[in-house]
Amino acid sequence: MSVESYKNSLNDGRAVYYRGKSVENVAAHPALGVPVSHASGIYRLQQDSKYENIMCFTDKKSGKASIFYKIPQNTEDLVVRHKLIYETTRLGRGQFNIVKAIGSDALFALMYVSRRIDSKYKTDYYNRVMAFYRYVVEKDLSLSLAQTDMKGNRSLRPSEQEDPDMYVHIVKRDKNGIYVSGAKAHTTQSIASNEIVVIPTRNMTEADKDYAVAFAVPANTKGITMIARPLKETETTMDDSLSVIGRENIEVETITIFDNVFIPMERVFLNGEYDFAGLLAMMFPTFHRFTAISYRAAMADFLIGTGKLLASYNGVDDKSNIRRNLAVLISYKETLKATAIASSYSCTYDKQASLAIPDIIFTNVGKLFANENYTDVVKNIVDIAGGLVATMPSYEDFENSNEKSSLMKYLAGRKKEETMERVRLFQTLREFISSLGSLYLAGMIHAEGSIEASTMELCRSYDYSSSIDLAKFASGINDKLEK
Amino acid sequence: MSVESYKNSLNDGRAVYYRGKSVENVAAHPALGVPVSHASGIYRLQQDSKYENIMCFTDKKSGKASIFYKIPQNTEDLVVRHKLIYETTRLGRGQFNIVKAIGSDALFALMYVSRRIDSKYKTDYYNRVMAFYRYVVEKDLSLSLAQTDMKGNRSLRPSEQEDPDMYVHIVKRDKNGIYVSGAKAHTTQSIASNEIVVIPTRNMTEADKDYAVAFAVPANTKGITMIARPLKETETTMDDSLSVIGRENIEVETITIFDNVFIPMERVFLNGEYDFAGLLAMMFPTFHRFTAISYRAAMADFLIGTGKLLASYNGVDDKSNIRRNLAVLISYKETLKATAIASSYSCTYDKQASLAIPDIIFTNVGKLFANENYTDVVKNIVDIAGGLVATMPSYEDFENSNEKSSLMKYLAGRKKEETMERVRLFQTLREFISSLGSLYLAGMIHAEGSIEASTMELCRSYDYSSSIDLAKFASGINDKLEK
Amino acid sequence: MSVESYKNSLNDGRAVYYRGKSVENVAAHPALGVPVSHASGIYRLQQDSKYENIMCFTDKKSGKASIFYKIPQNTEDLVVRHKLIYETTRLGRGQFNIVKAIGSDALFALMYVSRRIDSKYKTDYYNRVMAFYRYVVEKDLSLSLAQTDMKGNRSLRPSEQEDPDMYVHIVKRDKNGIYVSGAKAHTTQSIASNEIVVIPTRNMTEADKDYAVAFAVPANTKGITMIARPLKETETTMDDSLSVIGRENIEVETITIFDNVFIPMERVFLNGEYDFAGLLAMMFPTFHRFTAISYRAAMADFLIGTGKLLASYNGVDDKSNIRRNLAVLISYKETLKATAIASSYSCTYDKQASLAIPDIIFTNVGKLFANENYTDVVKNIVDIAGGLVATMPSYEDFENSNEKSSLMKYLAGRKKEETMERVRLFQTLREFISSLGSLYLAGMIHAEGSIEASTMELCRSYDYSSSIDLAKFASGINDKLEK
Amino acid sequence: MSVESYKNSLNDGRAVYYRGKSVENVAAHPALGVPVSHASGIYRLQQDSKYENIMCFTDKKSGKASIFYKIPQNTEDLVVRHKLIYETTRLGRGQFNIVKAIGSDALFALMYVSRRIDSKYKTDYYNRVMAFYRYVVEKDLSLSLAQTDMKGNRSLRPSEQEDPDMYVHIVKRDKNGIYVSGAKAHTTQSIASNEIVVIPTRNMTEADKDYAVAFAVPANTKGITMIARPLKETETTMDDSLSVIGRENIEVETITIFDNVFIPMERVFLNGEYDFAGLLAMMFPTFHRFTAISYRAAMADFLIGTGKLLASYNGVDDKSNIRRNLAVLISYKETLKATAIASSYSCTYDKQASLAIPDIIFTNVGKLFANENYTDVVKNIVDIAGGLVATMPSYEDFENSNEKSSLMKYLAGRKKEETMERVRLFQTLREFISSLGSLYLAGMIHAEGSIEASTMELCRSYDYSSSIDLAKFASGINDKLEK
Repeated sequence: MSVESYKNSLNDGRAVYYRGKSVENVAAHPALGVPVSHASGIYRLQQDSKYENIMCFTDKKSGKASIFYKIPQNTEDLVVRHKLIYETTRLGRGQFNIVKAIGSDALFALMYVSRRIDSKYKTDYYNRVMAFYRYVVEKDLSLSLAQTDMKGNRSLRPSEQEDPDMYVHIVKRDKNGIYVSGAKAHTTQSIASNEIVVIPTRNMTEADKDYAVAFAVPANTKGITMIARPLKETETTMDDSLSVIGRENIEVETITIFDNVFIPMERVFLNGEYDFAGLLAMMFPTFHRFTAISYRAAMADFLIGTGKLLASYNGVDDKSNIRRNLAVLISYKETLKATAIASSYSCTYDKQASLAIPDIIFTNVGKLFANENYTDVVKNIVDIAGGLVATMPSYEDFENSNEKSSLMKYLAGRKKEETMERVRLFQTLREFISSLGSLYLAGMIHAEGSIEASTMELCRSYDYSSSIDLAKFASGINDKLEK
Repeated sequence: MSVESYKNSLNDGRAVYYRGKSVENVAAHPALGVPVSHASGIYRLQQDSKYENIMCFTDKKSGKASIFYKIPQNTEDLVVRHKLIYETTRLGRGQFNIVKAIGSDALFALMYVSRRIDSKYKTDYYNRVMAFYRYVVEKDLSLSLAQTDMKGNRSLRPSEQEDPDMYVHIVKRDKNGIYVSGAKAHTTQSIASNEIVVIPTRNMTEADKDYAVAFAVPANTKGITMIARPLKETETTMDDSLSVIGRENIEVETITIFDNVFIPMERVFLNGEYDFAGLLAMMFPTFHRFTAISYRAAMADFLIGTGKLLASYNGVDDKSNIRRNLAVLISYKETLKATAIASSYSCTYDKQASLAIPDIIFTNVGKLFANENYTDVVKNIVDIAGGLVATMPSYEDFENSNEKSSLMKYLAGRKKEETMERVRLFQTLREFISSLGSLYLAGMIHAEGSIEASTMELCRSYDYSSSIDLAKFASGINDKLEK
Repeated sequence: MSVESYKNSLNDGRAVYYRGKSVENVAAHPALGVPVSHASGIYRLQQDSKYENIMCFTDKKSGKASIFYKIPQNTEDLVVRHKLIYETTRLGRGQFNIVKAIGSDALFALMYVSRRIDSKYKTDYYNRVMAFYRYVVEKDLSLSLAQTDMKGNRSLRPSEQEDPDMYVHIVKRDKNGIYVSGAKAHTTQSIASNEIVVIPTRNMTEADKDYAVAFAVPANTKGITMIARPLKETETTMDDSLSVIGRENIEVETITIFDNVFIPMERVFLNGEYDFAGLLAMMFPTFHRFTAISYRAAMADFLIGTGKLLASYNGVDDKSNIRRNLAVLISYKETLKATAIASSYSCTYDKQASLAIPDIIFTNVGKLFANENYTDVVKNIVDIAGGLVATMPSYEDFENSNEKSSLMKYLAGRKKEETMERVRLFQTLREFISSLGSLYLAGMIHAEGSIEASTMELCRSYDYSSSIDLAKFASGINDKLEK
Repeated sequence: MSVESYKNSLNDGRAVYYRGKSVENVAAHPALGVPVSHASGIYRLQQDSKYENIMCFTDKKSGKASIFYKIPQNTEDLVVRHKLIYETTRLGRGQFNIVKAIGSDALFALMYVSRRIDSKYKTDYYNRVMAFYRYVVEKDLSLSLAQTDMKGNRSLRPSEQEDPDMYVHIVKRDKNGIYVSGAKAHTTQSIASNEIVVIPTRNMTEADKDYAVAFAVPANTKGITMIARPLKETETTMDDSLSVIGRENIEVETITIFDNVFIPMERVFLNGEYDFAGLLAMMFPTFHRFTAISYRAAMADFLIGTGKLLASYNGVDDKSNIRRNLAVLISYKETLKATAIASSYSCTYDKQASLAIPDIIFTNVGKLFANENYTDVVKNIVDIAGGLVATMPSYEDFENSNEKSSLMKYLAGRKKEETMERVRLFQTLREFISSLGSLYLAGMIHAEGSIEASTMELCRSYDYSSSIDLAKFASGINDKLEK
């Protein structure tokens, strides 16, 4: 798909609201056009001869296809995927580009889980998943993924909520399909995706049966409404000559409401098999947290460069306290990379679904590290930068000739000729921690699973047997290691 | 001074730039009017019968006066000052109101230091300081304080800079006064102050003699130019029905440029006595960090309330992991309060200048704690809040009747009737970590002294003698305690 | 009581085991004699003219008495108590001396709670408590306090345990008194105390009625058995010329078993009033955590001195990274002091029991800080010290003339004449983190309440109302502050 | 070499002191025999059919040989080495077994560096290194490595010290070899090694020329004296039926003194080429820190097992706060494993020396993480364990039938039949944080390089170019990525 046809594909009557107004064509909207344009970068790179090789692969059936959709078979495939996400994030100025990554993460999880449901219940989900997969690959579509329900009272299960719609659920079934209602929070780039994949947000009990539902649905389906968050980072930098990210590389999240939406049976991937809701809710994050540690490494790369340059411009990059700051930034990025590589190296090949799964422990250790330490990274970059990261004048002041010479004189660091670079870095970092701040903070602490979620996953998935074996041997309970 | 006359007093021809344009009357400016209005809150409270008692005191000479300017004499006075700053910050929606606090901090430091300079050099600085002090008290003026120089290459001393103007310095002296040039960064509320007090940013050597300068100067003096940072937090919430802080309680910082500004001798408080620059650069922070831990406790109070409410609305405020989050918020605030109280309790009375000085160790321990742990506080409040702190729709969406009912339905937490409160808290917290983010992060990590600054101060000021005594006793070097 | 008569008072037939052997006279035992000697330091200081003033006060009824037992009436009394604990810990080479502190903490809590039980149930507990109090003051007795039960399965309540004896409880009642069975863990200095005070470890339900029991009992009462932990820190330093703490200033803990022990009614302070078990379990820690932050500040004082000296001897005490280490040590101590002072300053006077109670929030904030950050303190002191803290030769090597000259040559730091001091500090710090390590780590993380305990206490006791008021005002829910 | 012949090989007249006495035969010494026995475990496993495969490989020239000495050629070899160190540490009850690991790390570094010196100075070092390597492989020798000099005043360079012997240096040269004097601190297992390899501890300037020296020397060479640290962990557990590690798996460090020791020329690997001292001082740690993260992962494995078992025995392993504790332990181990695997995966093959070098960034990131977070791990395991980790009675109490039944009753956790296991784990963990405490703390914070050392290495070795490229692109300084 070309950039042009991708953008056109989104002009399909989908129901989108932005700042209280219905949006007719997202690609043409002044604010929402930015996330669309950011997403289209994937299509642009696919057709750029310099990047074509890293963006595409040759699929046996479909020929040249987006490499995001290549089903990983081994360590190398996973490392390639890690680098793909890392590099496309760098090419997006340190901003993740989700539209093919998250969908493929979901499809891989669905392949894995559907095999197991089919095996237990003699259902046909795997074939449905693969049919949808082939469709996506051949059409080169963009996907979004809706998982987090609105949840209402967090201390109650889905079926215990006062309002049954607090979790997306099946309200009616007929022989052709199912009807679903409810809403999902923070669906990233839904407005820029062709299809929305929906999966459960947690494990379910028998009482929650109708909440055990997964499917894929075109974004313009009747009954789906997407209400976008306001893009202040974009709106306030439209004319800002010192700031680029906000008007080029932003993604957007929506509250995505399903009002009695019909899903034809061939697009339904879970339909009441509540005992598999938890497995699906866990397998998608396994793939997606692998994606997360990869894009976060790229975001950290931006901060390392910014920190190193600002410290150099200040003439202090070799001071002991600044070295400590830089080591925190470096450690953050490289720990994420290390867990991604180790996770690839220690992957499990699933014969049933014919795919390689990143190691769940390394992936979650990396993800938990990313969540727990992000604010410490912010502390360190701000500590390097100093107060000007908040108090620098605006771009207009640099365009006023009365002020410019004074500003250029006084904002010089180590060398006069570096002044404008220094100003740009301050301004970009200011955006990073202000307009973009809520997105980054909430994203780094909650996206792809919260601190508590990764903690629970680690404690649940960890194989303690060799550790216990060692503890018993070391304390003299056993007189030799069993393992 | 009434609110009205205070606002009028700022319409005095001062040279202010905002977003590349010269500002004629700051109080009437759509963006800069907000920090002026916030500052005027101090004058409003002084005349509000409910608050008059805590805002004013009876000065022997001037009669009723702003209690910010009451020279502390003992523990009680300092505790009163701590509570004053804490309460005025709460009354400013958790935002510090600096315009009398910082100036009085500076005046107290000048009283202390001038006595010592006079004593060594037979100068007359103390009388000049007290004359200026009386003038301020009687006119009920607002002050700003300019300390941090632009600094250029941070690894060079003032006199070693390629451009001598990187630190404010004396360019000429005559019998009537001195002429100064240079610029100061992040002068908070300069545009809302009647007078600017200028002090050195660091210790000085003999070579830096001309940089050892302190004075007070009206903000509208010829040669002074103030270039303000852009107030995005204000500009983007002018019409936002869900957001209040940005359009009511913001302060502003400027780069403050001095171009051959004349300072009459009676307003000069340091004039080349380089051996006292360091003492002044240290004493002002001692008072001002006491102020800082007081206002930061109030800001943390806002976060405790927000965290507790959001957790309650989510139905999870008694979960073990949420308790850990809340305990971090509580500990942050209460540790700051504890250091402020202990600092008051252990104050030193300086006979020469007739004032009580907060304990420098407790003050810096509190300040360092505040700087080091702020991002951890942010992590914990965001961890409580969840992703909606980033992805909530805009206020316009709540004004569109098509969307409102859906939003009210799906944004409900524990109870439907709490939904709008929950939405407001999310929106306010979003502003806190986005539009306001750079200000808070840079402020909490750098304002009133960086982490490195407080570390150095602590290691320098600490009296190790009793600790060394104990180490020698405990290790058997000495056979009894000396102290 | 003199040191001599105190030691004799312990030779009373009490049932004590040490390393599998029954101990006849604890004061004369080679290992257990050390904690007795440490405890006797309190009696020694009371009679030392240099310290008499800070150790004693004049009681209206009893005349000269131990100031530990002075019932605090106001801020000053509490600050005096803080300093008393701080100084006696320093006089114990940085080791807390518990024998009067903990008992008075318990008595103050019992005074407070007994008033409330009496008020509700028309009981006579307060008079019993005061009678016991007067007896202790007049006889100048030492007390220990047994609170933590053995607990068995921590997920079950007392009455749900398979073995009912996992918590101390009433097994029989008659008109003269009660009979109790069960065991308490880690009763500090029980073997060096005249009387043991027993209180519940947690809140109780009606089903736990028999577990709601508090009393005081002489340590030599029939049915009480104390099994001491091994004192390796003492045993291994008996002859060590480089190490003093282990053979002079150690305390000891026991498992204290109650086998059908009779308690006469006048010594029973809680007898089934289960609804007050929680209050007592909370009030004792309030007093005792105030004690804890006071003695921990003194222990930290030892580490500051050791760190500063070792860094100086290495010639690096002004390096930036060492300053960071020292600032951590300083901040640890001074934060604890600040919370103790603020807790005193903000004390509550309880009219019913006529005593001043340290502020529960400041006390728990300080205690939680102490628990959470102790291992970080260890990291920083070890980081300063370097590897010799582990690998230094033994004292015997310094006594062998063949080796001594080489060791003195090669263990020199900055100056040759400081070598032996450096060696002693390394050896003492080695003891601190090895022989004494489990005691300090478990003590600093668990004694006087664990991290989870202080977290729960803070979240339960915190008055959120003004914080919520501010959150509602700042977010525009309310248009003014109520409080 | 068999265990027997290995032990005999150490009875070679070497000069060893322990607790002030000369030791004739280390293997037969009651205390020092323990580290020898621990070291001999490597020889035992080599001959154990169960482990032979993982302990040995077939060398082209020497036939069956210790796999520690296999020169790594690629990722797989490094992963095998990582697992070898991990598994031998587990087989040593969580205690690292250094005697072949550290020597091979040093040999690999010498291979790398000698090639570069030869290339610049036309020397013959590589052949000397390889000849020594072949000798070691064929004789199956154990090696120790002496790097850290005594250092004296840390703020002075080697040649600036008052006493020139504070760093090992060349005191004389003749045509047959060199003579060296000085001393090295904490040489691990020197007493259990056949040969000692000596390398510089830092970079050197021309003035430090004589300090730029590296060589290998038999441990019994005239002029070498080894003074061992006291092994309290061994001495106090000789008869302790509850404690195993201390009397089975301890290593020992010595101060190793060189008094005019002759080194024949073929054993000299650096002789004044001061410009290569820094490279050697950096390359050895690169290999050795890879070893460190591998053995530390195994040590952490012990703590995970201990934590999980203790929590289970307490009936609380599924509590939220305990999960947080366990996740810290798991993350510690798995992050170290991840960096080891990533470091292997991203290794560099050095053609000149024909060996694969672990990635220096991943290795140092892992090492820095290990150093920085160890005390946090201790906090978490102690938090899980509770106070009994300090206060449990001694093994003798369990051997006294009067006490045993009471102890078994009261020390029960969840199930009675687990009591003895629980007791053993508490006792072992107590040893871990007490007798072994200084060793672990100093080791985890300083061994194989301190926090500051890894920080400096990271900041020096990091290739910032792609990060800077991204920062410039993201901030609009450049309009596309260059890299």
